[in-house]
Amino acid sequence: MKRVFLTVSYDGTDFHGWQLQPGVRTVEGELNSALLTLTGEEILVIGASRTDAGVHAKGNVAVFDTESTIPAGRFSYALNTILPEDVKVVSSKEVPEDFHPRKTNCVKTYEYRIYNDVMPDPLKRRSTWQVPYELDTAKMKEAAALLIGTHDFAGFCSVKTQAETTVRTVTQVEIEEISEEKEILIRVKGNGFLYNMVRIIAGTLADAGSDRRSLAMIKEAVEEADRTKAGPTAPPQGLCLKEIEFNEMVKDRENE
Amino acid sequence: MKRVFLTVSYDGTDFHGWQLQPGVRTVEGELNSALLTLTGEEILVIGASRTDAGVHAKGNVAVFDTESTIPAGRFSYALNTILPEDVKVVSSKEVPEDFHPRKTNCVKTYEYRIYNDVMPDPLKRRSTWQVPYELDTAKMKEAAALLIGTHDFAGFCSVKTQAETTVRTVTQVEIEEISEEKEILIRVKGNGFLYNMVRIIAGTLADAGSDRRSLAMIKEAVEEADRTKAGPTAPPQGLCLKEIEFNEMVKDRENE
Repeated sequence: MKRVFLTVSYDGTDFHGWQLQPGVRTVEGELNSALLTLTGEEILVIGASRTDAGVHAKGNVAVFDTESTIPAGRFSYALNTILPEDVKVVSSKEVPEDFHPRKTNCVKTYEYRIYNDVMPDPLKRRSTWQVPYELDTAKMKEAAALLIGTHDFAGFCSVKTQAETTVRTVTQVEIEEISEEKEILIRVKGNGFLYNMVRIIAGTLADAGSDRRSLAMIKEAVEEADRTKAGPTAPPQGLCLKEIEFNEMVKDRENE
Repeated sequence: MKRVFLTVSYDGTDFHGWQLQPGVRTVEGELNSALLTLTGEEILVIGASRTDAGVHAKGNVAVFDTESTIPAGRFSYALNTILPEDVKVVSSKEVPEDFHPRKTNCVKTYEYRIYNDVMPDPLKRRSTWQVPYELDTAKMKEAAALLIGTHDFAGFCSVKTQAETTVRTVTQVEIEEISEEKEILIRVKGNGFLYNMVRIIAGTLADAGSDRRSLAMIKEAVEEADRTKAGPTAPPQGLCLKEIEFNEMVKDRENE
């Protein structure tokens, strides 16, 4: 028996999110089904991040146990011949049998992409949130600075959360202007995120950039953990889970 | 009666190309149908460039005549409320009644996007050609230089062409590396293109970059106008018609 670690990339548009649900198309469902075809085993993968419907990923993570003789590093190639074109395995490797992607410390990087123009762009509709009013990135950066640190992020979380604690550490909230594309990229790094947290951060920063919400109110949303003082939940298609770095992996890399 | 000029943007993935065809979904068909809904008139637009199935556009052009009292500049907003999300009108304006988009001198800019990596990327599959072998952009630039100028491009054109002459002027073939995205962008400018010409240029430059085709053979493909010496036709999804600049418009702009 070995435990295999997959880095998974997908276009979330046509999925009902990551998590297995009967009767609908999910990323987890496609992975389980491809593994059944490949190995003959009824495998249920364990995902690192259960992304919502419409949310994309460049580097989500799934692990599973198998008796298969296929070398761990070959699973990516073998699975990609079976998987549909909107979900692919970027790489695969063996990990210790006790490695669990939701119980291991990690740093997650999300990117939220805003398309800031009055006119809709058909080529950006699946991967951006179109904001038709002007956004001042200087103000967005000021608001972003208020979010960095260890805070109770209950104000930036959907009521649906089942988390035991709403305290999280956000180490980076970066605002990047991609002028030639009329895009604003929000890059958020942290050790864990609450339900809808990055999308609420994006909605709040857009509010700051358009003067719909003052810096004082955003400061209160953080300090008082008050959902009514944070901004709206930005739509899913602008969000992409870029990378998950596990502490073990970071150590591995340092030893190389 | 007035003649209205539309700048049209679309995601070509789910269209059978620009040109009206019975029983299938085309960009022209969607525009005609939205204009019928909006004006009650049976309008048939005239397109500048009849792009193939799967090819995208940021700035294709269509003109039409109408008796409608809607101001020319408002057509973009009005049509966008009717059009599906994968085709939108970026702008609209009135032009002289004798303006014809295929009979007016213009400069067209196309971009062809290669995704150069071994592993497929679900988020790039609709807008790039995945080339899994290594491409040397220095060699691609050398090959690109051979194409610039006025040549008989019969070697770079599908046999299906109905053009009277196969002589065209290409003013720019630029190779841009977008390293963080593992993308190579080929930007081609010219006063007109033959059927599949930009896609054959992209296929030829990819051949040059991977040493599948020598610079000497590409030189012969140009000089002898020999299709067998040029490269393959690259797939449609990597191609995007970025902009069409009409000489009148250029003059307008200079007078502003």
